[in-house]
Amino acid sequence: MSQNLSALLDPKTIVIIGASNNFERTGGIPVKSLMGVGFTPETLALINPRYDEISGFPCYKDIPSLPWTPDLAIVAVRATETLPALQQAHAKGIRAAVLFASGFAEEHSPEGIAMQQEIVDFAHATGMVISGPNCLGHANFKTRAFATFLKGFEVPAPSGNLAVIAQSGNIAAIMMGLGKKAGLAYSYFVNTGNEAVIEFSEYLAYLAKDADTRAIIGYVEQLRNGELFLQTAAHMRAEHKPLFLLKVGTSEKAAESAASHTAAMAGNARVYQAALRQVGATVGGDPGQIIDLAKLWSTGRRPAGKRACIVSVSGAGCAILSDRFAEVNVEIPTLPEDVQEKLSKVIPSYGMWTNPVDLTGQVTNDLSFFRQVVSILTQTDAVDCIVFYIMGYLLDLVAPELIAAAPLTDKLLVAIDPGGASAVPALEEAGVIVFPEIGRTAIAVGGYLDWAARSHATSWTPAPARALREGLSFSALNEAEAKDFLSSHGLPVVQERIASTAEDAAAAAEALGFPVAVKVLSPDILHKTEVGGVQLGVSNAAGVRAAFTAVTQSARAHRPDADIQGVVVQQQITGGTGILLGVTRDPVFGPILTVGLGGILTELYQDIAIRVLPINRDIAAEMLRELKCFPILDGFRGAPVSDREALISVMTRLSDLMQNIGDTVQEIEINPVLVRGAGQGAVIVDALVRIGK
Amino acid sequence: MSQNLSALLDPKTIVIIGASNNFERTGGIPVKSLMGVGFTPETLALINPRYDEISGFPCYKDIPSLPWTPDLAIVAVRATETLPALQQAHAKGIRAAVLFASGFAEEHSPEGIAMQQEIVDFAHATGMVISGPNCLGHANFKTRAFATFLKGFEVPAPSGNLAVIAQSGNIAAIMMGLGKKAGLAYSYFVNTGNEAVIEFSEYLAYLAKDADTRAIIGYVEQLRNGELFLQTAAHMRAEHKPLFLLKVGTSEKAAESAASHTAAMAGNARVYQAALRQVGATVGGDPGQIIDLAKLWSTGRRPAGKRACIVSVSGAGCAILSDRFAEVNVEIPTLPEDVQEKLSKVIPSYGMWTNPVDLTGQVTNDLSFFRQVVSILTQTDAVDCIVFYIMGYLLDLVAPELIAAAPLTDKLLVAIDPGGASAVPALEEAGVIVFPEIGRTAIAVGGYLDWAARSHATSWTPAPARALREGLSFSALNEAEAKDFLSSHGLPVVQERIASTAEDAAAAAEALGFPVAVKVLSPDILHKTEVGGVQLGVSNAAGVRAAFTAVTQSARAHRPDADIQGVVVQQQITGGTGILLGVTRDPVFGPILTVGLGGILTELYQDIAIRVLPINRDIAAEMLRELKCFPILDGFRGAPVSDREALISVMTRLSDLMQNIGDTVQEIEINPVLVRGAGQGAVIVDALVRIGK
Repeated sequence: MSQNLSALLDPKTIVIIGASNNFERTGGIPVKSLMGVGFTPETLALINPRYDEISGFPCYKDIPSLPWTPDLAIVAVRATETLPALQQAHAKGIRAAVLFASGFAEEHSPEGIAMQQEIVDFAHATGMVISGPNCLGHANFKTRAFATFLKGFEVPAPSGNLAVIAQSGNIAAIMMGLGKKAGLAYSYFVNTGNEAVIEFSEYLAYLAKDADTRAIIGYVEQLRNGELFLQTAAHMRAEHKPLFLLKVGTSEKAAESAASHTAAMAGNARVYQAALRQVGATVGGDPGQIIDLAKLWSTGRRPAGKRACIVSVSGAGCAILSDRFAEVNVEIPTLPEDVQEKLSKVIPSYGMWTNPVDLTGQVTNDLSFFRQVVSILTQTDAVDCIVFYIMGYLLDLVAPELIAAAPLTDKLLVAIDPGGASAVPALEEAGVIVFPEIGRTAIAVGGYLDWAARSHATSWTPAPARALREGLSFSALNEAEAKDFLSSHGLPVVQERIASTAEDAAAAAEALGFPVAVKVLSPDILHKTEVGGVQLGVSNAAGVRAAFTAVTQSARAHRPDADIQGVVVQQQITGGTGILLGVTRDPVFGPILTVGLGGILTELYQDIAIRVLPINRDIAAEMLRELKCFPILDGFRGAPVSDREALISVMTRLSDLMQNIGDTVQEIEINPVLVRGAGQGAVIVDALVRIGK
Repeated sequence: MSQNLSALLDPKTIVIIGASNNFERTGGIPVKSLMGVGFTPETLALINPRYDEISGFPCYKDIPSLPWTPDLAIVAVRATETLPALQQAHAKGIRAAVLFASGFAEEHSPEGIAMQQEIVDFAHATGMVISGPNCLGHANFKTRAFATFLKGFEVPAPSGNLAVIAQSGNIAAIMMGLGKKAGLAYSYFVNTGNEAVIEFSEYLAYLAKDADTRAIIGYVEQLRNGELFLQTAAHMRAEHKPLFLLKVGTSEKAAESAASHTAAMAGNARVYQAALRQVGATVGGDPGQIIDLAKLWSTGRRPAGKRACIVSVSGAGCAILSDRFAEVNVEIPTLPEDVQEKLSKVIPSYGMWTNPVDLTGQVTNDLSFFRQVVSILTQTDAVDCIVFYIMGYLLDLVAPELIAAAPLTDKLLVAIDPGGASAVPALEEAGVIVFPEIGRTAIAVGGYLDWAARSHATSWTPAPARALREGLSFSALNEAEAKDFLSSHGLPVVQERIASTAEDAAAAAEALGFPVAVKVLSPDILHKTEVGGVQLGVSNAAGVRAAFTAVTQSARAHRPDADIQGVVVQQQITGGTGILLGVTRDPVFGPILTVGLGGILTELYQDIAIRVLPINRDIAAEMLRELKCFPILDGFRGAPVSDREALISVMTRLSDLMQNIGDTVQEIEINPVLVRGAGQGAVIVDALVRIGK
């Protein structure tokens, strides 16, 4: 359901149903917050039959008694009273509601699930915009519409450009707290709760369009509308608005935890990872890491590359930083000759100026020397980021120089101080972010530079995914049909013939030319090797006859139930690298393409690349480069270079196929496509297709 | 050089050569420190011709004027004056010296290198124990012998059980500072500097034997005496004294940085990693991570396993922790049925009690419920560690319960609080360590549990490595000689015969039985396949004759310079998994064994296991299990289980061989040994041996 969320997230007027005069309680906290930030009896209505007034605001006994119609209802009554409250609110003309109560589907009880379903049905029937239940609510910092029972909102906070959307109230609160401590200011805060009606991606879509929201951070367990998420994230990327997400579920236990407390499947972690990356989002590992990313973003510096220069007063510091930055794929390029020459004239001979730059202890004696180094480094375009590992009183010593230099460069400037320098606030004010630890710095800078570099790259635009057409029944094509199907969509398949007798098989082999492969033909047998259903390298007609008997009998022995239709006699392609390509349907993101080296080791090493379809040639090429086994396609160890262009064509044609007729295709597995030497093409040797009729 | 370091590290009396009355200077800081902690004119002598006295202590004009002989000389004069000072000190009978000056080999200047060599020669000639140069010095917290110009020692600090040894002054200072902040107390602090005479492992060996030192942390760029390091670390492991090291050099840039500022090769990072782990040491990524490990150790809790229970008031927190702990190989086991049943009676139905344990917000209403949960979890032996993610005021609420429960269990207890709870000092006093971030907690707990678990396991005892015997000239055996050599040491090799003519080859094949492999025989050709020197699966005598001609001609064409001695005709072994085994010599740790799956992918995936020799069967088995491709030897995907016992025998026999005659062996590469089905053995098909004669 996609709805306009303005009445929910940008209300001018609010009613609290179940308002309390105990400001420690769920129904009392928003009363205090909203009164504290300037809501008046004209903009804030209170409902509770037990009071006549709260802090001077009139309190109505029920919604029908309200003399005016607010935009948003905060529903702070218990679960069983929630639906009646919604019905009254709707009757009054209220268009949006946020439901605080727990006791719904998250309890896994039949009653809770049924009550939640009633709310869903009510929303569908009325079009009412309903947030929650089982949520902390949300806050709009621009209008101070603090529709939440999270505390700390009674004093007006400055409004900012960062929005938080979290599927957990605890994590939302932690992110808010850490962000405040880090000096970040927010535009919106949303805790989505059970997402009975409105889900994560809908909030995201609304806030992504808000002009004042320049970045969004969040916590995600699962997405229910992958298509909207991808479209929104792609839109944000095009506008250079970062999306920094804490996504859980890479471990089985996490998936279990998430499933247990939100009744949601965590989905395939690898697919999430690939999809989030494809669309420009950056993932962090805990709330602190997300806030660190936001803090780096708040400097407004968005370098196009991932090249850092390390500056320290300690050779050991340089070495430690080099190791940690290498782990997060930040490049530490050797500086150009001319830059090194300039540096060598100011840095003592026992220092270093190749990058890392070791200033040596000399910095304590001569501050102008530090100024020169910073000036040289900010002027070269060989690096995108400068990291200063200069601790404690030394950082205080050089801070004025850093603060003076910061406005003159758009490089990302970061300092690491485990020693408690007093200049930290002034440095951060000037746009030099200071972290207390090396490891944490590397994670933050690595993640941020990666986001920034990708925000400059050509972006991927998702196309509407073709969902499986309803009413079709899906079954596997046999091998020959599968290859015919692929061939008819422009994919290169191996030459082959079907034969139902040994004599036919021998004749087919003569026509194709020796050697050939003989494979049992059955729609019921997906893995032919496992039933002894394949003979390779058969080199004459007698051999083909014998192979026919052998593979059909072996298959029958292993799988007496299978429909064995004969054999496929196939040209035996020699040489080439076997690659596996798979199109499957992810429940969240729709059709995805997986590529990996064929064979047993790919599974053990998990060396695969995944993308949501559609893809173009650039993305296909990027997928191949992402594989650890890529050098095998690139002439590793003197082997011939493979025809990668041909493989890329196979990948993009699969993507086109899914765009054109994907609504009838459940699954395609090509295993292998043999990629031959450069210019010699790629040919599909075996394939599995599940299609609907 | 191995020396008794007591005069250096446990001096009763000290002389400062180059003492200064400016307590900000190198020669003044130790004057202030040592006077401040109780040294008297009877135990502290000062030398400087410019003063008569400093702060009431007499100051002598030179060392000969000294009326008594101190144990240790702090040499705080410039580089050029250092050797004369040492000569005077030695003449006076002083047995140990620490040299502060820089300007030696670390400057890479011919003068600096020569001056350092003079000091080395002097030390060798006199037996004087010399630390540095280019170091901060060292400190003994037990006797308050603070022979360092690091500040902050003028006030007596409580003496503790933790020693710091660092190859960088900056990192030493940072570790001291962070440790002090973390409430850790030290026994010794050593900055090793240039290690001209005494190197890291010698300090380690001395401090490892100190009864008051119960753990050692350090910073290492390179080790110069790998054998002493391994022996010492093994000894520490046997005594359950942890060794937590920050080791740099995993990245090329770090190796470069380390090399530049200490004139040292960083060595092979993979070998360091394997050797440190083999001997029970644990590696951290930055100074903060090392201090976190030491803090966990300071609780005195040393669990035997790596099973953690996560307890939170937030399902999302449970999920995030599960992901992060999985990344560091901490197990989150599902709790036993009976434990779950007990928990289910106290935790609300919408919580979780499988592990992670989600207490839900109920904890705010009922503290006795938290007490019960903690009691149930501390009593089960299904977990080794309990991690509480309960933040801010909630942690303060439950803190008294945790503090009461802590003494009743020896499990590791850890809390995570991003919210600034005030109970943190009291919790840590009780042995519940509190970290501010999830990611940092996972790294610390993962590293510590790994160390603790390994400290309970059977430990490895290094044997003296046999260095290459001097005076030998090393050359490669030809393939046949190599296999004869291995066979004579009890290793299983493929049956084969040497043939110098085509006819001999055919006859040899008849004797061995078909099919055979025909391989060119030449001591000059190490990679036969690359010169077309191998034909496989030759199935009759005529084929063998043709193969003889083909492989010798092809080899000659590729390598006209090679001495081609004929061919090896070899039984062709079918089936089995090809494994690569290599024995090489590491410059630091001596002979090491590497095992990996043979073939091109092993190199791409870097899927190898490394151990310093000797190894036993347990270690060999552990190496195999460490391989990501291990399932291939273990019946992965229905394949037959390989004869791992036979492979393990090959590995241990290689180890025995190196123990017995290793002083003549430079390198052995077995590629491959074919490991056949269970009970069918393993056979070496090809090998390269470089041996001295």
